[in-house]
Amino acid sequence: MEGTLPALPPNVVDELVLRALEEDGAYDDITTRLLVIGEQWGRGVFVAKDDGVVCGLPVAAAAMTALDDEVSFDTLVEEGQRVSPGAELAEVEGPLATILAAERVALNFLQRMSGVATATRRFVEAVQGTKAAILDTRKTTPGLRVLERYAVRCGGGRNHRYNLSTAILIKDNHIAAAKQRGFGDVEEIVLLAKRGAPHTMRIEVEVTNMEDLRDALKAGADVILLDNMDVAQIREAVAIVGGRALVEASGGVTIDSVRAIAEAGVDYISVGRLTHSAPAMDISLEVGLG
Amino acid sequence: MEGTLPALPPNVVDELVLRALEEDGAYDDITTRLLVIGEQWGRGVFVAKDDGVVCGLPVAAAAMTALDDEVSFDTLVEEGQRVSPGAELAEVEGPLATILAAERVALNFLQRMSGVATATRRFVEAVQGTKAAILDTRKTTPGLRVLERYAVRCGGGRNHRYNLSTAILIKDNHIAAAKQRGFGDVEEIVLLAKRGAPHTMRIEVEVTNMEDLRDALKAGADVILLDNMDVAQIREAVAIVGGRALVEASGGVTIDSVRAIAEAGVDYISVGRLTHSAPAMDISLEVGLG
Amino acid sequence: MEGTLPALPPNVVDELVLRALEEDGAYDDITTRLLVIGEQWGRGVFVAKDDGVVCGLPVAAAAMTALDDEVSFDTLVEEGQRVSPGAELAEVEGPLATILAAERVALNFLQRMSGVATATRRFVEAVQGTKAAILDTRKTTPGLRVLERYAVRCGGGRNHRYNLSTAILIKDNHIAAAKQRGFGDVEEIVLLAKRGAPHTMRIEVEVTNMEDLRDALKAGADVILLDNMDVAQIREAVAIVGGRALVEASGGVTIDSVRAIAEAGVDYISVGRLTHSAPAMDISLEVGLG
Amino acid sequence: MEGTLPALPPNVVDELVLRALEEDGAYDDITTRLLVIGEQWGRGVFVAKDDGVVCGLPVAAAAMTALDDEVSFDTLVEEGQRVSPGAELAEVEGPLATILAAERVALNFLQRMSGVATATRRFVEAVQGTKAAILDTRKTTPGLRVLERYAVRCGGGRNHRYNLSTAILIKDNHIAAAKQRGFGDVEEIVLLAKRGAPHTMRIEVEVTNMEDLRDALKAGADVILLDNMDVAQIREAVAIVGGRALVEASGGVTIDSVRAIAEAGVDYISVGRLTHSAPAMDISLEVGLG
Amino acid sequence: MEGTLPALPPNVVDELVLRALEEDGAYDDITTRLLVIGEQWGRGVFVAKDDGVVCGLPVAAAAMTALDDEVSFDTLVEEGQRVSPGAELAEVEGPLATILAAERVALNFLQRMSGVATATRRFVEAVQGTKAAILDTRKTTPGLRVLERYAVRCGGGRNHRYNLSTAILIKDNHIAAAKQRGFGDVEEIVLLAKRGAPHTMRIEVEVTNMEDLRDALKAGADVILLDNMDVAQIREAVAIVGGRALVEASGGVTIDSVRAIAEAGVDYISVGRLTHSAPAMDISLEVGLG
Amino acid sequence: MEGTLPALPPNVVDELVLRALEEDGAYDDITTRLLVIGEQWGRGVFVAKDDGVVCGLPVAAAAMTALDDEVSFDTLVEEGQRVSPGAELAEVEGPLATILAAERVALNFLQRMSGVATATRRFVEAVQGTKAAILDTRKTTPGLRVLERYAVRCGGGRNHRYNLSTAILIKDNHIAAAKQRGFGDVEEIVLLAKRGAPHTMRIEVEVTNMEDLRDALKAGADVILLDNMDVAQIREAVAIVGGRALVEASGGVTIDSVRAIAEAGVDYISVGRLTHSAPAMDISLEVGLG
Repeated sequence: MEGTLPALPPNVVDELVLRALEEDGAYDDITTRLLVIGEQWGRGVFVAKDDGVVCGLPVAAAAMTALDDEVSFDTLVEEGQRVSPGAELAEVEGPLATILAAERVALNFLQRMSGVATATRRFVEAVQGTKAAILDTRKTTPGLRVLERYAVRCGGGRNHRYNLSTAILIKDNHIAAAKQRGFGDVEEIVLLAKRGAPHTMRIEVEVTNMEDLRDALKAGADVILLDNMDVAQIREAVAIVGGRALVEASGGVTIDSVRAIAEAGVDYISVGRLTHSAPAMDISLEVGLG
Repeated sequence: MEGTLPALPPNVVDELVLRALEEDGAYDDITTRLLVIGEQWGRGVFVAKDDGVVCGLPVAAAAMTALDDEVSFDTLVEEGQRVSPGAELAEVEGPLATILAAERVALNFLQRMSGVATATRRFVEAVQGTKAAILDTRKTTPGLRVLERYAVRCGGGRNHRYNLSTAILIKDNHIAAAKQRGFGDVEEIVLLAKRGAPHTMRIEVEVTNMEDLRDALKAGADVILLDNMDVAQIREAVAIVGGRALVEASGGVTIDSVRAIAEAGVDYISVGRLTHSAPAMDISLEVGLG
Repeated sequence: MEGTLPALPPNVVDELVLRALEEDGAYDDITTRLLVIGEQWGRGVFVAKDDGVVCGLPVAAAAMTALDDEVSFDTLVEEGQRVSPGAELAEVEGPLATILAAERVALNFLQRMSGVATATRRFVEAVQGTKAAILDTRKTTPGLRVLERYAVRCGGGRNHRYNLSTAILIKDNHIAAAKQRGFGDVEEIVLLAKRGAPHTMRIEVEVTNMEDLRDALKAGADVILLDNMDVAQIREAVAIVGGRALVEASGGVTIDSVRAIAEAGVDYISVGRLTHSAPAMDISLEVGLG
Repeated sequence: MEGTLPALPPNVVDELVLRALEEDGAYDDITTRLLVIGEQWGRGVFVAKDDGVVCGLPVAAAAMTALDDEVSFDTLVEEGQRVSPGAELAEVEGPLATILAAERVALNFLQRMSGVATATRRFVEAVQGTKAAILDTRKTTPGLRVLERYAVRCGGGRNHRYNLSTAILIKDNHIAAAKQRGFGDVEEIVLLAKRGAPHTMRIEVEVTNMEDLRDALKAGADVILLDNMDVAQIREAVAIVGGRALVEASGGVTIDSVRAIAEAGVDYISVGRLTHSAPAMDISLEVGLG
Repeated sequence: MEGTLPALPPNVVDELVLRALEEDGAYDDITTRLLVIGEQWGRGVFVAKDDGVVCGLPVAAAAMTALDDEVSFDTLVEEGQRVSPGAELAEVEGPLATILAAERVALNFLQRMSGVATATRRFVEAVQGTKAAILDTRKTTPGLRVLERYAVRCGGGRNHRYNLSTAILIKDNHIAAAKQRGFGDVEEIVLLAKRGAPHTMRIEVEVTNMEDLRDALKAGADVILLDNMDVAQIREAVAIVGGRALVEASGGVTIDSVRAIAEAGVDYISVGRLTHSAPAMDISLEVGLG
Repeated sequence: MEGTLPALPPNVVDELVLRALEEDGAYDDITTRLLVIGEQWGRGVFVAKDDGVVCGLPVAAAAMTALDDEVSFDTLVEEGQRVSPGAELAEVEGPLATILAAERVALNFLQRMSGVATATRRFVEAVQGTKAAILDTRKTTPGLRVLERYAVRCGGGRNHRYNLSTAILIKDNHIAAAKQRGFGDVEEIVLLAKRGAPHTMRIEVEVTNMEDLRDALKAGADVILLDNMDVAQIREAVAIVGGRALVEASGGVTIDSVRAIAEAGVDYISVGRLTHSAPAMDISLEVGLG
């Protein structure tokens, strides 16, 4: 990327980390309190146990340092870097009791975000050489959308709209509702939306057949979402659009089907499973006494 | 279960649902605002697209009804019920605009929780006929631990400790730390913990070899956690314990390895992937106009 | 507008109202506690003391009913309706002590929002018959942006971007910063932004001269913001654009200058004073004993 | 003032600033993220564009420094200082991206607070040489009362009661309510209030005629509020009071009427428009690259 | 009291109750979940085990009904009523599981508030027949000041200032500080405070000797606080004041010393131990199955 | 204790301290603002006025330093140390205005926590030489449970369960409810609970007679709670248990009765009055000017 890094807003990170530490009882780790004393010092190394793309080191750092100023956290790889099993990702040092209390929260974030980044990278590589970009969806873990969108970017993907209030996407149910109110066809409906839409937003329209596609184009839709079409249909739709709008494909896309869809000529492919079904990447914290 | 249902605290559900609705911009769904009017009525049916175990209907209900009192939500199956593709899970009715605005949040919870319940059920069935119970771990999604533990129970599993402050689990790092302070062996260390521990809590000790196991038993440990042992070692350990303590196995347990571990005679098997890597169950909301 | 009403998210309203009631000590109105008893009933009518456009009745209703379920609130005019001095806007009935405790908060919201709506309506009427729409800006009262944008819509205006994260607006400082990094001209810079921008967002570019304007158009900017140009320059700029992009004018627009700007052919005129300097509309609550 | 400065509680400032930055999307400024990189340094000067009284520099400082420790903020004038167009008010330096992201929030507070201080100063100067002090009212912007009261003090005014729970002000509705309960006249009602009032609070009574005024004085009211009286009536009332109580005048006071009211001999004049209708002072941030 | 009831702001009660229920784990009462099922109904009666003054029934009601709408709560005595052991105070009915989960929180509030009310009543009765009123202090339980001030009123006492920002009380440290700045004596210092004080607040001055007392009176102090004086001194001070100010006594007042202080002629006696050392009143909830 | 100190979670302390400072108006101490200027420096010493056990110095430190970084706080005794009247406990230095504003909050925490620690120490000393440990109960001040449990540990006591969700304690109402559902006796009921209980928790059962005691033991209860038994009954119960379970006594335990109960052979004695009725320890802050 040309100079700018994907952002991870510090206020969101801090709030999520504090909530997670409280959820995990990290402020009152009873076992550690019984057996470890304040003077004992520890060192830990985060080690990859799987192949994958690392993501979430700033969140792990926030978790490790939230409980005690004396803890230091140093990263040994870059965010978004691909690693192999055994790779050392980061190093933490400080009071042992604190390291033990924060360990699980740091790992829970790091494993999950790296899992999303790793899944994304696989899709991104599968479409390499085509013009298609891989997009996330709104099928994210409730409460963690900011982190998961960032992880998608770490994996080389791009983000779809943040939520319902930041972009316009006209779906089949909206079209049906507008028809019930007396609007005749997709063209008329897209024009209705355009009249009311903020001038800073594009209009994206989901279509399932070529007639609706043509109507949407006539109304000047900026982006066409081809929902659950097969590759032949997608190719036909791309031809109809002919560059007059951006084209996005979605619907049950898998690592096996994504390349063919990309080669059909779309600009974007959105993939729910990047966030709703990515397995965690296996990472452990190996602790030694200082 | 004998009369009592698995609890899902309403305050936690409400807080998570409101946070998720706000995250998704559901209070200002711009597309719906442009195309749907307040008078339009809708009906929706949640339909399973996969085999699986349904979990999270009360959360979906909370999401659907949070925005508008006029929305009704009726479940068509029980929490924890196994369903096939096409099964109708619940029915929602109310202002169409509200249903569309809350749809994604309701589905995000329902798909994830059903995914956890489904994964758990597979492990539970794999050990059927043995005495072993399937346990979750603290490897949960940050912020969603209450929901995921509930989903594990819906799937037939049981819960391990909620967090660091509600139970004692002495791990290798605690033992190493206590040795550094001059305590000689595991027996001495477990006794130290017992002296300080609340009288309402059991003492669980993680061991990786038979010597530590014997030490822990001598000190009167209530539960022994066998960490990353192979089946032969587990069998030996169970024999050594001889009923003097409960026995739990953990460490990289998969659907392929779980049965043999159970047959080795343990009481509990804890499985991280129930929560950190369960794929979402595919569920959709099919909306019609009222 | 075609069927859809301007939305006022209930969660925002409730939070702002509760915060305001607490700020005003409405939960412990000491004077009322000393002199009014729980059994006393009251009736109040909100009466306009100025000409203006009414806005904020749902917020006043929320303030009046937040303290006590027994209070009823009925509107007598529509949101966005123009009224004359003496017009009765709404009626409240319930325990007198509650009405007195909530009165000032209800009025503070209602007067301010009506003030914004009234100011907006003046600008909207001044450009009537041209194609220009009146837009708000981000120069809103901290914490009240949702309410003030709604008030602008009540007054017949439209909303610019909600905030920095929901739309792209390339300003002079961004251009200077990118040049410092080695980017040559506005065309190159707009293309850089387009490559990274979400596909759901348009690109708006602020220009102050015709060269930059031409560069921005070459790069395919969707919206051009003419900053602080005089009417002749605006007319020239509109001609250069020639319909290839939307055109917005801004910068110190007053009720005296707005018509000429509109007649110069722009699509949008954004006006900071709609929100940062609109005087409150004078409204009082006339209370009688029940 | 004799040594002590008007206070601006840091907890209130921090909370309002964080809320405003979040409202404005400052944690995720998408345009800046696309075009500015972390290494770029900036400098900005806050410059007055109007005559006025500066107020809110500590709030602007809090906004500018909240996002990044590396930002420095130095004031170039005093709070409450009168300035002319072109005056440099403060200087900010730090990462350019941060300065751009926080600019609007800092200005929104500064312009509004300076607007209130400026309006107040005009009223204060209009009564110079009389004994009357200018007071604010509870007609403040919901949520910003602490800031606006501070701005009134910056402008040379004084504060009326903070809210309903911190002082006693018996108004016409309270008197009517007490009469309905069987209390005969204002004297009796004021005595009722005095019996129940905290011994640290004075009793202020609003009167609209000379009979009620005499009753209130007989009961020992500490402060008399003359509501909406003309100058002749005010003069008569002041004579009747004869120094036995403090006298405040209120009701539609304008910059044109305030001097005559002051000369009629009152101690205080409360003016709603200081806070509900003061136009923002025009201030801009002129940014340069570091 | 003449018609008006002591207020207990519902927003404060609700927040404190929810926080307490969460602190006590009432949303996840594990024992009850194991042994009681949702269909089981219960009835409970709150019974006094001590003599005392009942206070806090609305808080107990809020605790009992917060978890479940189906719970009903009916009071059997009045707030502030004196009761004997065995007296039935209130009755609760609803799902047994809910009653058991909320029992301890309801009792913790009720016992503590009744303890404060009971202690207050003893002091109030001890001074009966004198003109002295019993006041609380700021020595309250952190976070519960609103409830404890209410309990003092239930016991027949009156409230001193709510906190540092709602009244003026010049203490020895303030006087020493002002002298350090060059102010000569108490008279001068009280006048300084009066000049800056809000016109709605009285000025209370703490004095420890007769010279300071005379100075404070000369400056027109409204209330004199006699700190830690013996009865003879108090009598002398009251004579010096001669009705020109209200007189309050404080400092280590006990149930044994309070009558003599009252008879020395003061208007108010403030007593820290009403709130910082009142033992809880013994109350239990006797539960039966429905 | 062997190396580990009782923990006081910093997040809880900070939240409680900030809430208390806000409750006390410490951010806007009007008297101090009128008379003290920012340049004035102060020093204060916390001095014991009673015999007692000091507890809460970290909380007092947090209160003193929360308002201003320049304040330093140094402890002069250890937490849990016994002191005599006149003992200097800690020293604070910094801006005088800040010290005066935070004084009461710091003292309110310190006096209350020291009161609890002092009461606990008396009970602990009364049972010295027996094997009985003194336990707290859930009869704590709502919102302050973490602090009061810590104070009990400072006084030499131990903590019972934190709340309803962290341990199992089967009481008479649970037994009655289970019998209503058809369970025959205490043995059967304890077995039911054991089946559903988390494997990390012990089962504690409250019994009031010897038959239930024998049933509970047969079912393998881990801890027996003897409720309101006299010393003879307790002795009999201890004999029946014969070391098969831990034994706790509770119910109206006083400083006079506690020794005999301990000598009857129980392991734990839980005492509600440690927290619900401990009088505050008298401590003052003696301030001097810097």
